[in-house]
Amino acid sequence: MQVTIIKIGGNIIDDAVRLQSFLKDFAALQGHKILVHGGGKLATDMSARLGIESQYVSGRRVTDKETLEVVTMVYGGLINKNIVATLQSIGCNALGLTGADANVIQAVRRPVKEVDYGFVGDVHKSGVNTTILTDLLQQGLTLVMAPLTHDGNGTMLNTNADTIAQEVAKALAVTMNVKLVYCFEKKGVLQDADNDDSVISRINKPYFQELKEKEIVSGGMIPKLENALTAVDSGVNSVIIGMAEELQQLIDGTTGTHIV
Amino acid sequence: MQVTIIKIGGNIIDDAVRLQSFLKDFAALQGHKILVHGGGKLATDMSARLGIESQYVSGRRVTDKETLEVVTMVYGGLINKNIVATLQSIGCNALGLTGADANVIQAVRRPVKEVDYGFVGDVHKSGVNTTILTDLLQQGLTLVMAPLTHDGNGTMLNTNADTIAQEVAKALAVTMNVKLVYCFEKKGVLQDADNDDSVISRINKPYFQELKEKEIVSGGMIPKLENALTAVDSGVNSVIIGMAEELQQLIDGTTGTHIV
Repeated sequence: MQVTIIKIGGNIIDDAVRLQSFLKDFAALQGHKILVHGGGKLATDMSARLGIESQYVSGRRVTDKETLEVVTMVYGGLINKNIVATLQSIGCNALGLTGADANVIQAVRRPVKEVDYGFVGDVHKSGVNTTILTDLLQQGLTLVMAPLTHDGNGTMLNTNADTIAQEVAKALAVTMNVKLVYCFEKKGVLQDADNDDSVISRINKPYFQELKEKEIVSGGMIPKLENALTAVDSGVNSVIIGMAEELQQLIDGTTGTHIV
Repeated sequence: MQVTIIKIGGNIIDDAVRLQSFLKDFAALQGHKILVHGGGKLATDMSARLGIESQYVSGRRVTDKETLEVVTMVYGGLINKNIVATLQSIGCNALGLTGADANVIQAVRRPVKEVDYGFVGDVHKSGVNTTILTDLLQQGLTLVMAPLTHDGNGTMLNTNADTIAQEVAKALAVTMNVKLVYCFEKKGVLQDADNDDSVISRINKPYFQELKEKEIVSGGMIPKLENALTAVDSGVNSVIIGMAEELQQLIDGTTGTHIV
């Protein structure tokens, strides 16, 4: 069994035209597939409209009780259901899920060390319910996952969409052939940050070390690639980083950065 | 195959303590089950906080574009996911659904006659996807349905929870033994409106006519009972009206009003 897992972030979700176009390409993909969506700016906007102050500690957002309600509404309701309804309208039988639904992902509330991030859930491979995910995929359903999990004690938790995509990929890789695609704002990992077409087509572990030493990759791209390499180590067949607008080509291997 | 469909409304949803207690009783019910929840006051409160004016025509709420976003968030996100997470915490493997999810209920936007109700969907038995509902139930999942459907063209629609419960019951009754339970604020249909214990235990069509002529039932109870009788006519095995606090007894037949 083969499955393609695709993660999209705020840059697509916040742009109705790009989202519609992406979903059309996504619906056209053959085979079993899972879409993991981030939150975008909608939750921040909604919090502001509701007069809920966004709290940050060391530059990272804290999910307090009120913010948890907002993300549960916005990610699990508004964004997820609009994506599902759109996919249904273009012939893709989508089912929206948070981690609580059918207990697909149980997370652990992040322990309080220096910082209390509030209702944030960390996912481990063992928290992913591969049996039910496999059953749902085999029923011909396309799964649309919101960046929300639950703690098993009745509380929803805010969880990073990249993490959800990765942990689901790793868990399913035990029994399936898994392709994991991260869509972001560039065509791939760039050799030259100022040249959008200087995409590095293939990165493996030694080459990643080299790119890091030469400071060709830096900042947020380092943990992204480290996670991708970890996923590959855990059995994910390939991790692809590229632009949502080139979805089919990314999967065909004719564009984007392939981590192997 | 046997299934119990239970509808709860605002009086339970708006009261965290009663909801928790109800969900415990619900989780304990044996066999396949579906919970249909209404919206409660949360959506109205949320609209008010967001400065969205609730519009009414002839005393009925109009679902404009902004209100549709609010109900999609609140019903499909906040209420649905909190119920699902709570059920998971007490050993009930719940899956939250709107009509768009897995295309379980496709509705038709209410035609504009004297009044344009906006994004409101009317459900007919044929819009209920019994195949997928049956598959999901057979996987051991308990379905938690929000009062939302979709039009098949990418738009969510606001749909009355009573209607969803009834149409799902009628559609499943073709192949299953279906019990439909409406929870409301009274112990059942009352012989004497001032005596909460004067529950009429059994109503059939001729008796309903008699009750109507004697004005023992009146107001909103008339369409409720007419709908219940229609459901029974369509093959639903029994429709039960009573209090959420007496769930097991309602199903056992020891309390509530049973429409047969």
